[in-house]
Amino acid sequence: MPTRMARIVVPMVVLAALACTCVVRAAEVDAAGSGGKMFAIAIHGGAGTLSRSDMSAEQEANYRAGLEAALAAGYSQLARGGASLDAVVAAVRVLEDNPLFNAGRGAVLNRDGVAELDASLMDGRTLAAGAVTGLQHVKNPIDLARLVMEKSPHVMLVGAGAEEFAKSLGVEMVPNEYFRTPARQNQLERSLRGAVSRENELEAFGTVGAVALDLAGNLAAATSTGGMTGKRWGRVGDSPIIGAGTYANNESCAVSATGHGEYFIRTVVAHDICAQVEYLKIPLAKAVDNVLNGKMKKLGGNGGVIAIDRAGEIVLEFNSEGMFRGVKTSKGLHEVAIYR
Amino acid sequence: MPTRMARIVVPMVVLAALACTCVVRAAEVDAAGSGGKMFAIAIHGGAGTLSRSDMSAEQEANYRAGLEAALAAGYSQLARGGASLDAVVAAVRVLEDNPLFNAGRGAVLNRDGVAELDASLMDGRTLAAGAVTGLQHVKNPIDLARLVMEKSPHVMLVGAGAEEFAKSLGVEMVPNEYFRTPARQNQLERSLRGAVSRENELEAFGTVGAVALDLAGNLAAATSTGGMTGKRWGRVGDSPIIGAGTYANNESCAVSATGHGEYFIRTVVAHDICAQVEYLKIPLAKAVDNVLNGKMKKLGGNGGVIAIDRAGEIVLEFNSEGMFRGVKTSKGLHEVAIYR
Repeated sequence: MPTRMARIVVPMVVLAALACTCVVRAAEVDAAGSGGKMFAIAIHGGAGTLSRSDMSAEQEANYRAGLEAALAAGYSQLARGGASLDAVVAAVRVLEDNPLFNAGRGAVLNRDGVAELDASLMDGRTLAAGAVTGLQHVKNPIDLARLVMEKSPHVMLVGAGAEEFAKSLGVEMVPNEYFRTPARQNQLERSLRGAVSRENELEAFGTVGAVALDLAGNLAAATSTGGMTGKRWGRVGDSPIIGAGTYANNESCAVSATGHGEYFIRTVVAHDICAQVEYLKIPLAKAVDNVLNGKMKKLGGNGGVIAIDRAGEIVLEFNSEGMFRGVKTSKGLHEVAIYR
Repeated sequence: MPTRMARIVVPMVVLAALACTCVVRAAEVDAAGSGGKMFAIAIHGGAGTLSRSDMSAEQEANYRAGLEAALAAGYSQLARGGASLDAVVAAVRVLEDNPLFNAGRGAVLNRDGVAELDASLMDGRTLAAGAVTGLQHVKNPIDLARLVMEKSPHVMLVGAGAEEFAKSLGVEMVPNEYFRTPARQNQLERSLRGAVSRENELEAFGTVGAVALDLAGNLAAATSTGGMTGKRWGRVGDSPIIGAGTYANNESCAVSATGHGEYFIRTVVAHDICAQVEYLKIPLAKAVDNVLNGKMKKLGGNGGVIAIDRAGEIVLEFNSEGMFRGVKTSKGLHEVAIYR
């Protein structure tokens, strides 16, 4: 049902008129017996310039299949009563393993041709969080972010130190070549020639992420990325920054962001959306609109966010041309989409 | 006038009764001719467990002199019409150069006996920001954070990459031994023996920072640290995280934090204070109290913040036993303090 999904993510300026079509409320759809409570997961695989003509039917089918597989992995955790944290990690891990998306295998390459990976996650129930940046050998960065949260006294670990921590726990390590795909190699070469510009910002700034609400009413968010094609100087974007790329708090919402990370850091996007929901008592969709199409657009930043609150309201919004995205809820909504 | 300063930073629970004594309002003190407008700077040099018996009179005098020198450096920028951004950088640089404080020279040492430095800053007028983490050779990390903001398209650079960027701009580099002092070496040794515990959390989590309001009405914040004694695995605290350790926005306030960084990251302390001021329309002191003595204390986190808004309201607050701090305003307030 691509039409319905398109409505979910239609620009907020249009949504002001369409009102409730932008979000999915617990009460709206009546399906799957979870006894009045609901559970839901939403995912993204990056936002940016993206039009139908950029992609063959086969490519599009592959992206859709990748999104479906990630949704299924996360949803199955929720359906058997699992925690939202388990669901977002499961979904992100599938996207990390898929070479089409800019995270884990298939991550973009830095200026030296090396994949450098970042990830973070947060548990809305406890406000526990974990983040890693500058990884070169950890097969699934989101798993290490979770271990930082659960097995270290810290929130954020960087580079070789983070990998030393990973090794001490027996985390699966791979040679950097594992992450490298011919498509990313080609993209880096074009980037270094100056051929990847704003027209290809999706390639430059892709990210994957997931947010979820579980049957117990707990929220969680997770984000993972290879960062920016041709990046140098140890550049870190918003994905591993708690508050910018990832935030979750049962008092407000869970958010995972994707886009031009520098703008997302400066506007503390994920936390700002949650803060507006908590302090201004406005609907999640309005908070997302204020931040993404208001504050951040004003600075010149492009990208998107996925967000969910405890009432089961889901918002998938972007101010760029497209965003790989998907949603699946216990109330029967199940869709993936790419374009507007 | 230590009495007055003590009142400024008295616990908020007492302040509920004392009301206006907790903050310094533009209208409150009548001095120095800045034509109705005012300018002000506040600084901190770390918060933690700290009692009068821990320190000799000579040590205390040295700390006070260090705080005075930093205040003077920042204030002189403001007094000649300079930008708040210049003022906070000038003050932080003086604290980085002073071996008594945990930033720049005199930074704590990681588990391998190496100083690893972090810093960040933010311009409340433009929301421009810069951050660096894991530096080992940059003499003044705060200067590099500013260069990241002004001379790179990025907000955050890490480790060797950040230092490569520094070298490309001719930034002053020093051998890591420059940062190392006998006191920190001794502290590391005690820490590795398990002798530095919560009783010495100031040693473990010190930070320096500054916030300022300039004559043009612009806010800025800056923070710098050596992080945590005996840290390992590339641990990053809140100091270089925009939103956690540092935030500035002319629409709300400027904040620099110090304390147990993991808790500050999870509560996005600096941005949360600004968000409460902006969205809840509450006084700065109330927002600081809500976050520091409410949300963060609930999680178990200790530390302090300094904050200033465009009306010239200044809050220096901590939920630990002491905080090295100082304030100087064009309205005649000029004090440094250490204990409650």
